[in-house]
Amino acid sequence: MILTVTLNPALDTTYAVDTVIAGSTHRVRSVEVRAGGKGLNVTRVLAAMGVPVLATGLIGGDNGDRIEALLAADGIAASFQPIAGESRRTVVATDGAEATGFWEPGPRVSATEWNTFVGHYRWCLNRASIVVLAGSLPPGIADRSYAELISLAREAGTGVVLDTEGPALRRALFAGPTVVKPNRAELSAATARSVTGVADAVGAARSLRDGSATAVVATLGADGMVASTANGHWHAHLPAPLPGNPTGAGDACSAALAAGLLRGSSGSSGSGGSGGEPKWPELLVEAVAWSAAAVAAPAAGMVDPDRIQELRPAVAVEEI
Amino acid sequence: MILTVTLNPALDTTYAVDTVIAGSTHRVRSVEVRAGGKGLNVTRVLAAMGVPVLATGLIGGDNGDRIEALLAADGIAASFQPIAGESRRTVVATDGAEATGFWEPGPRVSATEWNTFVGHYRWCLNRASIVVLAGSLPPGIADRSYAELISLAREAGTGVVLDTEGPALRRALFAGPTVVKPNRAELSAATARSVTGVADAVGAARSLRDGSATAVVATLGADGMVASTANGHWHAHLPAPLPGNPTGAGDACSAALAAGLLRGSSGSSGSGGSGGEPKWPELLVEAVAWSAAAVAAPAAGMVDPDRIQELRPAVAVEEI
Repeated sequence: MILTVTLNPALDTTYAVDTVIAGSTHRVRSVEVRAGGKGLNVTRVLAAMGVPVLATGLIGGDNGDRIEALLAADGIAASFQPIAGESRRTVVATDGAEATGFWEPGPRVSATEWNTFVGHYRWCLNRASIVVLAGSLPPGIADRSYAELISLAREAGTGVVLDTEGPALRRALFAGPTVVKPNRAELSAATARSVTGVADAVGAARSLRDGSATAVVATLGADGMVASTANGHWHAHLPAPLPGNPTGAGDACSAALAAGLLRGSSGSSGSGGSGGEPKWPELLVEAVAWSAAAVAAPAAGMVDPDRIQELRPAVAVEEI
Repeated sequence: MILTVTLNPALDTTYAVDTVIAGSTHRVRSVEVRAGGKGLNVTRVLAAMGVPVLATGLIGGDNGDRIEALLAADGIAASFQPIAGESRRTVVATDGAEATGFWEPGPRVSATEWNTFVGHYRWCLNRASIVVLAGSLPPGIADRSYAELISLAREAGTGVVLDTEGPALRRALFAGPTVVKPNRAELSAATARSVTGVADAVGAARSLRDGSATAVVATLGADGMVASTANGHWHAHLPAPLPGNPTGAGDACSAALAAGLLRGSSGSSGSGGSGGEPKWPELLVEAVAWSAAAVAAPAAGMVDPDRIQELRPAVAVEEI
């Protein structure tokens, strides 16, 4: 089973409007709400692909109740730790072509709430072979917190996929996650390097690994993705980029990486996901196909399994 | 007592952001929520000025609970009719200078819910001398609905201030509200005339009255306001416009008009607010001073009584 951790889940609100013009007011034609945050997008992709998954994290207030109800309605297993603050909302206004987004920061989490969550996370870890840590940290949560969760996962023999940015990413690397999945901008910021082409990305990913056992899989939008691992470096991509909505493509990549690690872990000695190096070229085919299917889907956290089936043969993986 | 009717109240959400750029995403630095909708802005201005006021209307869902809690926290008397749908939210993203707003349409109201509300409104009317009908109609409410509420108020001998636009305004005029308060754009749309200067505005206001007993007070932003009534026509304004936030200035004008009608009604035979023609020049001084104080206040629905006191002597009223 895969455990996903969403420390700052969101009630994602999408407004259908005519063209957004800064400084003016807009009548909203329709309102859609979804359970969001990177970790929950990963969760929904895994569920859509039939991979056993449990969502945990911190949740609170009316928005939190709404998020839990939306997950339950989608048949997604969740066990969140309640907090006193109210979970955030995101608002995206879209005319169908262009999207203008507003990200609330999220509730302040107390030290007591964090410690209670860590206890709950340990309980969840005992049931999981792979854990996905994804998204931003809400206010009050220390930058070292992902490092703490990674250390506990390693003690439990559980493989870790990490998708975050900034100080939380830099602090987490020292704890030795199995895979980190930055996008181009996050990779550039974390390594203080300009990342434009594939060669830049491989160099920056290698620098981020810094000789460790952690694999870096960087998503590059239309350029596909690059992987830098202890066993080699690859560039994986489609022959041509797909049109669609890139929001959530990175989350589908994290889901594919976690699902691949889960398959690897069940084939190993049973000591959990950290046993055995993944078969990278195959894993990258999955990651590109799942991401591309997410681009083709109408919203983040959705993929069509048939579309993934069609896309797999088109993915090219080149060793670098 | 003044009764305010808000058929489409809103949970007004203000996001503090850096400059809004269409098509990009924005980190929200802080989130503020307020009870909003034109009728509730009028209510809060009246309460701030010590005028007895009761708020009614239609409310529902988590957003509705939140609106009621915010009103209660401000010590505002409210008696809303619950509905099954969820009250809308508005989102305004501001960098302190420019504001970009998104207006949700509001919940669909059933015929049964409307009929139940009309019964509740009649009960409230028995306690009121003046009623303020302000704002948009939510989906499902017929354009003639304000006309229905105005007719019931007239039967009860209660004066009516109406602030709405479009078909709801045009249909309501035939029912004979005491005062209607369009802004420049609403006046222009309702009369199909271009309204740029004060002379245009007086002509359009006169045309909107169409010889009826209804007074038209049109707010013109920096140009102050014009009134067209059965007893004369006036232009009221400050010597120079004030800097500030114009959102809610029209609502403060409606509040001043209602408060003026209430004073007039208590001096009359006791048959309610529709007895006796208001003293227009004095009423317009109040309306301009309250509106200008709203411009000087940080948010819609707020006025500082001391500021109004300072502003009154500066207001010029010219008969046309």
